[in-house]
Amino acid sequence: MEFDPSLAFDPERFRREGRAVIDWIADYWQSVAARPVASRVEPGWVRSQLPDRAPDAPENLEVILRDFDRIVVPGLTHWQHPGFFAYFPANASGPSILGELVSAGLGVQGMLWATSPACTELETHVLDWLRELLGLPARFASAGTGGGMIQDSASSGVLCALIAARERATAGRTNDGGLHAERAALVVYTSQDAHSSVEKAARVAGIGREWTRKIATNDRGEMDAGALAAAMDDDARAGHVPCFVVATAGTTARGAIDPVPAITAAAARHGAWLHVDAAWAGAAAICPEYRAAIVAGAEHADSWGFNPHKWLLVNFDCHAFWVADRALLTRALATRPDYLRNRASDTGGVIDYSDWQVPLGRRFRALKLWMTLRMIGAEALRQRIRDHVAWAEEFASWVAGDPRFELLGRPSLSLVTFALRAGDDATARLLDRVNREGSCFLSHARVGGRLALRLAIGGTLTDRPAVEHAWETLKNTAV
Amino acid sequence: MEFDPSLAFDPERFRREGRAVIDWIADYWQSVAARPVASRVEPGWVRSQLPDRAPDAPENLEVILRDFDRIVVPGLTHWQHPGFFAYFPANASGPSILGELVSAGLGVQGMLWATSPACTELETHVLDWLRELLGLPARFASAGTGGGMIQDSASSGVLCALIAARERATAGRTNDGGLHAERAALVVYTSQDAHSSVEKAARVAGIGREWTRKIATNDRGEMDAGALAAAMDDDARAGHVPCFVVATAGTTARGAIDPVPAITAAAARHGAWLHVDAAWAGAAAICPEYRAAIVAGAEHADSWGFNPHKWLLVNFDCHAFWVADRALLTRALATRPDYLRNRASDTGGVIDYSDWQVPLGRRFRALKLWMTLRMIGAEALRQRIRDHVAWAEEFASWVAGDPRFELLGRPSLSLVTFALRAGDDATARLLDRVNREGSCFLSHARVGGRLALRLAIGGTLTDRPAVEHAWETLKNTAV
Repeated sequence: MEFDPSLAFDPERFRREGRAVIDWIADYWQSVAARPVASRVEPGWVRSQLPDRAPDAPENLEVILRDFDRIVVPGLTHWQHPGFFAYFPANASGPSILGELVSAGLGVQGMLWATSPACTELETHVLDWLRELLGLPARFASAGTGGGMIQDSASSGVLCALIAARERATAGRTNDGGLHAERAALVVYTSQDAHSSVEKAARVAGIGREWTRKIATNDRGEMDAGALAAAMDDDARAGHVPCFVVATAGTTARGAIDPVPAITAAAARHGAWLHVDAAWAGAAAICPEYRAAIVAGAEHADSWGFNPHKWLLVNFDCHAFWVADRALLTRALATRPDYLRNRASDTGGVIDYSDWQVPLGRRFRALKLWMTLRMIGAEALRQRIRDHVAWAEEFASWVAGDPRFELLGRPSLSLVTFALRAGDDATARLLDRVNREGSCFLSHARVGGRLALRLAIGGTLTDRPAVEHAWETLKNTAV
Repeated sequence: MEFDPSLAFDPERFRREGRAVIDWIADYWQSVAARPVASRVEPGWVRSQLPDRAPDAPENLEVILRDFDRIVVPGLTHWQHPGFFAYFPANASGPSILGELVSAGLGVQGMLWATSPACTELETHVLDWLRELLGLPARFASAGTGGGMIQDSASSGVLCALIAARERATAGRTNDGGLHAERAALVVYTSQDAHSSVEKAARVAGIGREWTRKIATNDRGEMDAGALAAAMDDDARAGHVPCFVVATAGTTARGAIDPVPAITAAAARHGAWLHVDAAWAGAAAICPEYRAAIVAGAEHADSWGFNPHKWLLVNFDCHAFWVADRALLTRALATRPDYLRNRASDTGGVIDYSDWQVPLGRRFRALKLWMTLRMIGAEALRQRIRDHVAWAEEFASWVAGDPRFELLGRPSLSLVTFALRAGDDATARLLDRVNREGSCFLSHARVGGRLALRLAIGGTLTDRPAVEHAWETLKNTAV
């Protein structure tokens, strides 16, 4: 008995089932506001609903859609719920969902230019669009020595930047002989409020956490550039090699923006690579009024990244990553096994994006970014960010006006950090109660040693009433 | 003027546009066989068709769908074309495309169990299903100390395995103090025919290419286990630390399967981590008759991975990756910043998959694997692999029967490597002419120093007539 090819792909069946899935998603979005934001299942519940073995015979989509409703949805924390204010929201949108769908439907591989030229060229092009929208300096444009690409996440972006920095600092010796053969230790610098991915990258790259200096921050959570310069000088004097500095534009805890111009000066003095992690705040640079603070100093950065999947309506995964000198990146990460050689690559005139990243394979992720930018348009994307910032200001004024609450600093863009004056235990209890109630969901961080609640506005369905409702819930739950 | 939320998501608009995109994909699959497989555009053509700047105002889906047809499709090499036999095909299917769509539509983050329990539990569960389907040993089951997960690609899987191996070999010292502080060098071993991702992982991890021993292969392309044992002994005697061995089950060039049982013995003697890269061939282990050769020795492997996106009808990205001792993996890769702490993680009773990989964020990729396994069923997946193997045997018999051609070894599963007897130049010209003609597309590799043509059967729309047509084209083009 031969395989029945209609099981794998049958156009008429795909049209029918595709419509059913599209409708299921539309229904989900229409009903998500009525669900508790955070899943209430106990560990193991989802698995307990699933059979022990894969089916031998094909099952119908109808059965699977019922399982979505019965098993999957109760097990979700609903990131697209209007009351989702935790972490940084990961915002999807109709255009980006459809872009992801087209990418899956085409099923092409963009590892080399030659394996699907449009996959590479559209990505380069849309990253140039985005560079201009953000007002990033021309050094990141593909027309010069730089260029942009999409990585899955900011973690992968910072790792690739670090590998390029490591190879620049060791003149390519690490890729050849390994770090073990180096006489001097390489050192990585970032602030104590930087994202955990910086230290993780240093671990993966073989540099280690002890060589990751976490520079002190000021009372606004911004890296102390003087302390950075001193630490770099100390290391250089001790015979170590200051190699890589990560400045954060918009920290996770409180949205602080490091003083990048002063940081670039310190990095430049030691020839260290400067990477700017603007994962969340970067999107706001499309608004001229927020831009200056976010992209200041970028003209001296070696790489710069932000996540359209956080605040620009593109669904995860979409980390936009630029380098000023793409040759440094490809020198560090390129491979050219015989089985991938081709005429276009041999000319050196095309981009092979697998040489810019860790994985060999890559999806056609530019489609979702392209479709989102086109179907929403830059002006509406700007307006949306302005709305969120305005709502955060309003929310902060409500917090400030309630004597039981305390703002932990001014809001940063759409992020508000605050606490109960009664102390950490009371704040923790409040967070717990509010999140259990289920109509909104916040997360926490440490700010100046204190437990802070974070309200991060950025969800696709989040509107002003949802923000107001979050405040009502907090206010009425606090005792 | 406030942002118009219907631009981001409007249920009725999404239903309408979703149907249009579903239909566009169905039309694409219905017409793809009539297109030239490989794109014929010149470098820069796609970009030349695109405006210089992102639009300020929203555009309609209709305009974008026209641009798909006019700009994107001519710039694609059609991996879903029935005549695609190059590299290893990356096979999509209706169920997996719909699974990817649901994942994008839900837009949840699976970085922690707590951030969407179903995203984690469904993944663990389906990887257990898959383990059983492949006949992998119980040590990889989540019920014991092991477990499975989905990584984007085999490259990322091997990197994570190597980081875990490096930390085991150095008792966690590298993550702390870096490789620079180690007295002894760590050594990685794989065969000269292994995938380029092994050496790339050694570079990324700071070990370096000079410490990546490429062990000789026999005349069938299989690693020489004796040479491996000797190399490991030599390194140990020289004071180095044999750390990580990658055995390949199904090499890229010719589908050779390394003698994993003998390799595990050598690795065990030195306490080195053994990873099996079964990226392509692994899928065939779902058929009992092919299983023994593919999973032999897995009971002594520390990690094992294969790509359902290559030959199991799941669209890229879907690398199934198992470890025998998940604690070794998480010890090497876990982070626990304060802002991600939560009750479930603190109990230690749940899986937080971000601790098993490099990126923090993760999509709900288990959905596409789950939907594909259910909507196609294990028996049909087996039958499909059997068909492909049978067609490869037939194709090989045609090659063997033509005196101008020569088989370069027996076919391995669905991969046939062959050449013209007239030599490399003639073979290169033939490949070039056939690929230009456009109805089928093959790639090349080096086999025993010779240029080999590779016919890899695995495309979703590939049927026996497509294989026959490829042979007719080759036969009629060879001069």
